[in-house]
Amino acid sequence: MLSPRLQVTLDSLRKLLRRGATNHTERLLARTRPADIALLMRFLDERERRRAFDMLPSDEVRSETLGELDSHLKTEILEGRPIEELVRIYEYMSTDDQADLLNDLSDELRQALLDALKPDEAEEIEDLLQHAPDTAGGIMSPDFFAMHEDQTVEETIAALQSADVEMAFYVYVVSENDVLVGVLSLRSLVTHAPKTPLCDLMVSDVVSVQLETDQEEVARLASRYNLLAIPVVDESNRLVGIVTIDDVIDVIREEATEDILRMAGADESVYESPSLLHNFCSRAPWLAATWVGGILSSLLMGVFESEIGKMALLATFVPIVLGMGGNVGSQTATIMVRGLATGRISSDVGWRYLLREVAVGLVLGALYGLCLGVYTFFTQGSAMITLSISVCVSLFASMTVAAGVGALTPLVFERLKVDPAVATNPIVTTLVDLLGTFVYFMTSKIIIGL
Amino acid sequence: MLSPRLQVTLDSLRKLLRRGATNHTERLLARTRPADIALLMRFLDERERRRAFDMLPSDEVRSETLGELDSHLKTEILEGRPIEELVRIYEYMSTDDQADLLNDLSDELRQALLDALKPDEAEEIEDLLQHAPDTAGGIMSPDFFAMHEDQTVEETIAALQSADVEMAFYVYVVSENDVLVGVLSLRSLVTHAPKTPLCDLMVSDVVSVQLETDQEEVARLASRYNLLAIPVVDESNRLVGIVTIDDVIDVIREEATEDILRMAGADESVYESPSLLHNFCSRAPWLAATWVGGILSSLLMGVFESEIGKMALLATFVPIVLGMGGNVGSQTATIMVRGLATGRISSDVGWRYLLREVAVGLVLGALYGLCLGVYTFFTQGSAMITLSISVCVSLFASMTVAAGVGALTPLVFERLKVDPAVATNPIVTTLVDLLGTFVYFMTSKIIIGL
Repeated sequence: MLSPRLQVTLDSLRKLLRRGATNHTERLLARTRPADIALLMRFLDERERRRAFDMLPSDEVRSETLGELDSHLKTEILEGRPIEELVRIYEYMSTDDQADLLNDLSDELRQALLDALKPDEAEEIEDLLQHAPDTAGGIMSPDFFAMHEDQTVEETIAALQSADVEMAFYVYVVSENDVLVGVLSLRSLVTHAPKTPLCDLMVSDVVSVQLETDQEEVARLASRYNLLAIPVVDESNRLVGIVTIDDVIDVIREEATEDILRMAGADESVYESPSLLHNFCSRAPWLAATWVGGILSSLLMGVFESEIGKMALLATFVPIVLGMGGNVGSQTATIMVRGLATGRISSDVGWRYLLREVAVGLVLGALYGLCLGVYTFFTQGSAMITLSISVCVSLFASMTVAAGVGALTPLVFERLKVDPAVATNPIVTTLVDLLGTFVYFMTSKIIIGL
Repeated sequence: MLSPRLQVTLDSLRKLLRRGATNHTERLLARTRPADIALLMRFLDERERRRAFDMLPSDEVRSETLGELDSHLKTEILEGRPIEELVRIYEYMSTDDQADLLNDLSDELRQALLDALKPDEAEEIEDLLQHAPDTAGGIMSPDFFAMHEDQTVEETIAALQSADVEMAFYVYVVSENDVLVGVLSLRSLVTHAPKTPLCDLMVSDVVSVQLETDQEEVARLASRYNLLAIPVVDESNRLVGIVTIDDVIDVIREEATEDILRMAGADESVYESPSLLHNFCSRAPWLAATWVGGILSSLLMGVFESEIGKMALLATFVPIVLGMGGNVGSQTATIMVRGLATGRISSDVGWRYLLREVAVGLVLGALYGLCLGVYTFFTQGSAMITLSISVCVSLFASMTVAAGVGALTPLVFERLKVDPAVATNPIVTTLVDLLGTFVYFMTSKIIIGL
């Protein structure tokens, strides 16, 4: 949802673009922050977007706007522009934004841009592009501020004043061959005598990550230790880059969205690609699991065909028994999966949660089973007393089983080192449907005696 | 999941505590970071937790550990300690951690602590506690660094060196009565002449929030503009506090977990309260909606009782028709809800997504409908050709309808200013079940001609 202020800006921008009022549009864009322009771009159509981008006040603003833009819009806006313009915009970007941009571009455009860069620039960026995009190496920036351990406070302050580093939160201290040996805050520089060597005031217990550390782990460490930047080292403990807090925030948001969508059997690309086919492909496999589960439920129900034939009323309770079981199962599974992802639950104490969830399932099942039994008794009359007892018992049983399955499945996947967010729901849905169908018809058969 | 290193620490800690090896335990704890200790505390039982807390090397470490601890553990650890000890630990905390702690304590303990504090300290903290915990006022810290606009660069550097501010990311510039007029980075201080007044180099276009701004909006602004801290002003634009990046990260994590759990009909308290009753109460209402929906589906199916009586096989396809519809509906609903929450989708362009989702539903429905039709044809034989056509058509229709309902419902709630994360799933589940049942039996009645 846009804030009221941005909504007003969007409305004016659209009106001005439609009227072709170039001067007014340019003035409006010059007054708006690049991050806001990037946000508003989402709401324009392709033609409007390209025109607005052309009217931005400078290449610097263009590059800042581009840095904040969604991946698929970057390519769309840049495609077909002269390569000199691309290089100009590119030069204004910070190194990690440059790497992101190159990752997002089409193969030809990426190659054209790399060819047009100076050889050393192209080499630096190609080094960065080697790392998988979801690792520390893939999100790090090589623009850090490091000094040798023998240098003094005075030298460090002088170097800091002339340094061209975007956000120098910490001074990293290295020994021979750039090996990371310590870190110090900017504050500690001003509270020590000018001649002190850095090795005397640095903290040598540095939290660092490897190039191939998963970005989720990087984010977890940065937020656990409240760090503004986390240093990235190679296998010889040489400092090669830093991951800054703004990238950590992006990772946390991304991973949360990814987890949410995965649990529902989709992925982030549904927002990025307008293609129907792509959207279809990302969702079809998950549904295939449900389809197979549904077929199995049908087969199982087929076993009780003669009972249904004798008492068609029996079938009308299938939606409520499966629906309630499915919902309890997915509540429990969600609580477990998110708990495991945030570290609230570890597989160590997982069995405690498992017991608790089964207990909650028992209580919920007792409540709603009783409600259903009483409801059936009053609507079907006392002739159907066995049906009332049967639906009550089977709703109770299937909800308890569903809670158990919902809690156990993620724990099993965690043990097997399979991401519980991906695999849990299709399995839980299928198992709960099958077990629910079985429990319901077996209970009915026994209690009603069909 | 704990990292291998922390797992080792946890194992040793448990072993040492069990053996009563006080010296070794103390040494181990002294080597471990407070944030890690706080994390490990989750895995200990209550008695171990209290003993480990007692063995921490100093009140300062105790206060740091406490600042990182989950809410319900704070109370557990502090309950029953002498008030003097509480005050000592409390004094080491930063102001916003102090406010968090007071919020988490029981009423008596909070009052006892407030009574034991010096009057001005108690007053400051009581001011903070007035704000709702999920607003800018509730998460802000009053420890910011501000200077008057007439002061110079030189004076600012001198003040900064003697200031006792935890993390001074920015220098805020105020005019008379503390009205916020500008901001400048620490970097710009060192690149300007010492005598320059701050009003000449400050940026006057400051992003700020009001005391009552929702914490989610604060996080959104901080991450959109890549800010390390965001100033909080009162209704007269007076600077009263700042929200720092570490709190922003906590908010982002919290809100993501909240959204995930809400969509499944639970809330964060399931991790915090071990009480079965509490867990039950947080989940029962959501299931009530499903229960009512299930009863309505049963009633609707009851209308077709004679058809089921004639052909019991018909009922066996109910689980697959409702299951597939439910899953497509929840995929679509999740994509829309998360898209609206992250700003990927606005209600402005919502109809475009609605159309796309219906299109995806059509394609998915065609695929799985066809599969089901073919499957039925081969298993039931050509005598059942009408049944095959009927299940094919009705799976297709119910999946398309489910995608439409799943996409439309969140958009409607967004328009009505109701949080789509809370309300969407129960409504979608219920509607999809009802519409699915209706579509399936109507189609069968018409095609098979029962």
